[in-house]
Amino acid sequence: MRIPPSSLPRVVIIGGGFGGVKLARHLDKDEFQVVLIDRHNYHCFQPLLYQVATAGIEPGSIAYPFRKIFAGQPNCFFRMAEVTAVDANNKRVETSIGALAYDYLVLATGAKTNFFGLQRLQALAMPMKTVSEALDIRSLLIQHFEKALLSENLDERETYMSAVVVGGGPTGVELAGALAELKKDILPKDYPDLDVRMMEIHLIDSNTRLLKEMAEASSARAAAYLRRMGVHLWLGERVADFDGAKVSCSSGRILRAATVIWAAGVTGAMPAGLPAVNLSGGRIQVDHCNRVEGLEGVFAIGDVACMASDNYAQGHPMMAQPAIQQGVLLAANLLRQKRGEALLPFLYRNRGSMATVGRNKAVTELPRIRLYGWIAWIAWLFVHIYQLVGFRNKVAVLWNWMHNYLRHSRDLRLIIRPFRRPPNQVSTTETPR
Amino acid sequence: MRIPPSSLPRVVIIGGGFGGVKLARHLDKDEFQVVLIDRHNYHCFQPLLYQVATAGIEPGSIAYPFRKIFAGQPNCFFRMAEVTAVDANNKRVETSIGALAYDYLVLATGAKTNFFGLQRLQALAMPMKTVSEALDIRSLLIQHFEKALLSENLDERETYMSAVVVGGGPTGVELAGALAELKKDILPKDYPDLDVRMMEIHLIDSNTRLLKEMAEASSARAAAYLRRMGVHLWLGERVADFDGAKVSCSSGRILRAATVIWAAGVTGAMPAGLPAVNLSGGRIQVDHCNRVEGLEGVFAIGDVACMASDNYAQGHPMMAQPAIQQGVLLAANLLRQKRGEALLPFLYRNRGSMATVGRNKAVTELPRIRLYGWIAWIAWLFVHIYQLVGFRNKVAVLWNWMHNYLRHSRDLRLIIRPFRRPPNQVSTTETPR
Repeated sequence: MRIPPSSLPRVVIIGGGFGGVKLARHLDKDEFQVVLIDRHNYHCFQPLLYQVATAGIEPGSIAYPFRKIFAGQPNCFFRMAEVTAVDANNKRVETSIGALAYDYLVLATGAKTNFFGLQRLQALAMPMKTVSEALDIRSLLIQHFEKALLSENLDERETYMSAVVVGGGPTGVELAGALAELKKDILPKDYPDLDVRMMEIHLIDSNTRLLKEMAEASSARAAAYLRRMGVHLWLGERVADFDGAKVSCSSGRILRAATVIWAAGVTGAMPAGLPAVNLSGGRIQVDHCNRVEGLEGVFAIGDVACMASDNYAQGHPMMAQPAIQQGVLLAANLLRQKRGEALLPFLYRNRGSMATVGRNKAVTELPRIRLYGWIAWIAWLFVHIYQLVGFRNKVAVLWNWMHNYLRHSRDLRLIIRPFRRPPNQVSTTETPR
Repeated sequence: MRIPPSSLPRVVIIGGGFGGVKLARHLDKDEFQVVLIDRHNYHCFQPLLYQVATAGIEPGSIAYPFRKIFAGQPNCFFRMAEVTAVDANNKRVETSIGALAYDYLVLATGAKTNFFGLQRLQALAMPMKTVSEALDIRSLLIQHFEKALLSENLDERETYMSAVVVGGGPTGVELAGALAELKKDILPKDYPDLDVRMMEIHLIDSNTRLLKEMAEASSARAAAYLRRMGVHLWLGERVADFDGAKVSCSSGRILRAATVIWAAGVTGAMPAGLPAVNLSGGRIQVDHCNRVEGLEGVFAIGDVACMASDNYAQGHPMMAQPAIQQGVLLAANLLRQKRGEALLPFLYRNRGSMATVGRNKAVTELPRIRLYGWIAWIAWLFVHIYQLVGFRNKVAVLWNWMHNYLRHSRDLRLIIRPFRRPPNQVSTTETPR
């Protein structure tokens, strides 16, 4: 890989999510040469993917070019590539665009969708971890409505109109809420020939409550909001199979839907060709300073890293906050390591968590206070606008939200690229019968 | 196709471009049932496609859902489908979603890219008639810059960085200007390791002047703007071949570039399975009332129609204005036909034409006045904002333009879906040698 030689030690960061970008920005460029590798040429603001999927905002509003983030920073290089192997003995990574030597390697590869070995679901359910996947969901939802319009068979029509969201974490809750709003505000206007009451929205989670990282009162509030919006909640229920038209649950329940969105689980996204490391729940075990045991000079931060601590025996929650905080700390720790000083241990500060369900409906937990309803929704809006990278994006999202709020509209219901399943998948009955 | 039965005569419109949408909106819904068929679920504002291709605005800003355009209009139906055959004897169209009977059929299928039989160009040059194609250009331009960064070979690097635009009409001029602005403002910041002066932008046209529909003074002005911005103009020159790395011209000239954008020609986009009709320059011959000769009850409007008249012996220019005016007239004429009245002949009123080259640089010809420079550019901005469908889109585009203007920026340089050539194309050497 063509990177200018430098007398400074080289930090190679794999992955430009919240953790990787924060680390790259905080590293002292007078002390290190920084190379960030990502398969995309943009940082994606994942918390708003569900809004892209439900036609609320533009994909470009939650994506920000890495080259712009690092513009004007000498000693900081971005390369769009896939990592194919990590050679920890020789301190080199192999990538789709050549090999690169490192002094420090940081794995910040994030999480990928986990289908828990359910092959038919993997083939037919829609994941939502990338901008491209969110756009596929947007296209598929509309394609299914167009198909519903053509069907003379009422069962088939209901199947095409209905959706099952698997997973009751923030993503699943926000997605189910957004679908309920589409059902209420948009689809009756767009499809006057269809009886939109036939559209059923189901949310399934194997836990007995939603948002299990939050307090029970917040879970109950989110559930009440969703029920009021007409979403069917199936808690303590597991998905077993999906044939393209029917979801079978482990209790024997059958839900009819052509669209299944999988927000049920994630697991660490391992870089290809990583030497054997200790895993914990699919994530790379790291010590309190984010060091990967047994691989000298290799660190892991964010979703892909599992750091067991007193309050988080299973590792920190796979969310933006721990990744960002670990990125900031590691920037300081790499400097300490270079100077031969002792590294500082990571201590997670939970700044709170939030989920929005619909207009004026959200649950927000801050360190000292819990907010519900309108005020929580406003807090959610401001926190998300504030965190978006780039002023253009902030204004663009704010404008779309204002417009959607005032006009009860979602103007981005566009099938720019129709979704077509890739061939050679598990054989199934894809069309509802 | 499932369309509610009606006692009113049914007008089927194939194609939802400027002409088709205008006609559908103007038709009297108390007198007709209207069915608009399009392969996309949105109307595309084609004049701004080049801005999507050059990362200036979002694709969603120039696309507007048909269902929203026709919301609340009973007797007006949209169906997303491909027409596969027209059976004029039985007054039926066959489509990918079933057959449909009509009383009046309007062909408003617009234009498609014409490669004039140059097969290797068809396989390797990028057309720009759809949102999807514009996004492919955006991706490919960035992909080529990422590749340039990896190359040790200076010739190869120059090839990846350079672009040839074929066609000196408004689209080609606007595209070449936008590429020159990317070269000036964006790429040096994004790729400090590359010498951006190596990027060459070529504009080729077989005519001896640009913008041949406009006055000679305007052509000269546009050419002067482009030259000042560093674009190489090759007028009176024809493209003969492209091997993925080099464009060969008929004069023997060779231009090195990996990106070739084809804005050189369009031809009528015939619906599949149309019975034999008289063609003129690839367009369907119509009389002065847009009737297709020999096919009773069939009309054609816009780019696909060729109406010879005193001032336009070869048919009207393939632009938005004639399509819109023919759509409006045909709405009135169908009503007259239904009532047994004589149809009115079409008379084109040229409202002017305009092309923007860069910041503060445009040429605008109005019926009584020609404007150049800053004032023409402002006129261009307002006309285009005004014509965009949807208030959300108007504000979104205005915001992006303001931002880009003030910050000299283009934040949408994103490869959301990498462009990959479809397989089974003409065999070529795709990578520069």
